[in-house]
Amino acid sequence: MSKTLSIAFIGLGNMGGPMAANLVKAGFQVTGFDLSASHLDQAKAQGVAPASSAQAAAKVADVVITMLPAGKHVLSVWQDILSTTKPGALLIDCSTIDVESAHAAHRLATEHGLTALDAPVSGGVGGAQGATLTFMCGGTELAFSMAKPLLEAMGKKIVHCGEAGAGQAAKICNNMILGISMIAVCEGFALAEKLGLSHQALFDVASTSSGQCWSLTTYCPVPGPVPTSPANRDYQPGFATPLMLKDLLLSQDAAHSAGAQTPLGARATELYQRYLETGASEKDFSGIISMLRS
Amino acid sequence: MSKTLSIAFIGLGNMGGPMAANLVKAGFQVTGFDLSASHLDQAKAQGVAPASSAQAAAKVADVVITMLPAGKHVLSVWQDILSTTKPGALLIDCSTIDVESAHAAHRLATEHGLTALDAPVSGGVGGAQGATLTFMCGGTELAFSMAKPLLEAMGKKIVHCGEAGAGQAAKICNNMILGISMIAVCEGFALAEKLGLSHQALFDVASTSSGQCWSLTTYCPVPGPVPTSPANRDYQPGFATPLMLKDLLLSQDAAHSAGAQTPLGARATELYQRYLETGASEKDFSGIISMLRS
Repeated sequence: MSKTLSIAFIGLGNMGGPMAANLVKAGFQVTGFDLSASHLDQAKAQGVAPASSAQAAAKVADVVITMLPAGKHVLSVWQDILSTTKPGALLIDCSTIDVESAHAAHRLATEHGLTALDAPVSGGVGGAQGATLTFMCGGTELAFSMAKPLLEAMGKKIVHCGEAGAGQAAKICNNMILGISMIAVCEGFALAEKLGLSHQALFDVASTSSGQCWSLTTYCPVPGPVPTSPANRDYQPGFATPLMLKDLLLSQDAAHSAGAQTPLGARATELYQRYLETGASEKDFSGIISMLRS
Repeated sequence: MSKTLSIAFIGLGNMGGPMAANLVKAGFQVTGFDLSASHLDQAKAQGVAPASSAQAAAKVADVVITMLPAGKHVLSVWQDILSTTKPGALLIDCSTIDVESAHAAHRLATEHGLTALDAPVSGGVGGAQGATLTFMCGGTELAFSMAKPLLEAMGKKIVHCGEAGAGQAAKICNNMILGISMIAVCEGFALAEKLGLSHQALFDVASTSSGQCWSLTTYCPVPGPVPTSPANRDYQPGFATPLMLKDLLLSQDAAHSAGAQTPLGARATELYQRYLETGASEKDFSGIISMLRS
């Protein structure tokens, strides 16, 4: 993909801002738009050309990237820009949204003769800043191969998960496993504490046996065993609880629509909701151990 | 530890039988007892000297090992043998039992001036046969250092988890994490199937990101991604569902007694109970995915 291609980036918040900046750093020409004037100013300072609207940004672009809060925002922006987008343009949605909206977005693009990719990310703000995100992509082989060189300017791992919607599906299935396993690890430590078993002893056993999981060995919810985990800095995110809850709610929406049974996913969703209600909106999701202890 | 020491092994079933045989192979003198005549005969064929009772086996032994189904059996056997056991003998309980009984067993031994270790295992029948078990040990440093050379004849990894009962605590905390994370992975795959995401695609994403766990990457509950997992042989155990349920029930007993909150542990226990009631007593615990699909 030639770096003289023009990219429109819609949604320049905590994630979209640094992602757009990394495209600029990689040599792409990026025009951006955000409803927030301050986000737009910050992006401008990073070399993104500000536009007056999503439509204005998109109409000159070969590739349009959206990074927005929810499905309704993505569908609204895509609806706005589709009539004026260049023929043959590629639309990439990097937002984490519900699977049904992702399918609806693909249909919108197809109806206008455009190529689309759903490409939600994992890695958080740190990954966005450091260009180390993982992109989980859904769409045709052609859409994926067109997008890949560009996504590589913002991420480290670009995975083609399948057809339209498969990127969103992979993200919510993965994050549902994550959300549940984190609580499992927290319950294990909370029980160990009551039984007089030290954190380090449980870590040493479980990290090298069948209880091993990322939530334990990379993101340990008690201070000590993994010095880089949020538990060592009073659960400053990291991966904030409202974002974990968002992903779990998306997984439960999808499970409900598709008729899948996810009993632990449902229970985990309730528990993060309850944790959030204790005032944990600024806490990492691994901080839920404090609620389980109380 | 001199291999001329005499070992009594009480409980020569699917686990205890091959464990005792490995002690014989390592050169120890082993006298055994089991209520089942056929187990005793099998052990005899492996070089274990059969005794007529637990007491008869134990009274000449420097080390007594028990491998029995539940806490009540361990306490009953220890009660029987304690009055006639050699002064200074070491008692090792390798059974997986409730934490309260483990403490009671340690107290019994202490009252009789004997040294005790709780040392439950993981690794299953395969680990017992291949002498690759993991031993999770609770007791004094002295008890641990006395037991270690002997446990090394039956296992690959011998961990000192802490004081009396810490071995049982580590095992149930680990296995509670395992039991929950397996259902998490099964729910992930069941949801992926409904969303049209392939098993391999979810595996590729989750195994290299935050959904990674032993239940996914070593023991994958769908056939294909991990050829050695029970899913590839119609869920033949492996780790049979009744044993997982036993460990989860022990974790819930301990959580209840100790006042720990384990909401996902509780829900997972209910789910394995329900799976068992569908006729899954001979199925690996990862087969629970079939119940979640139905």
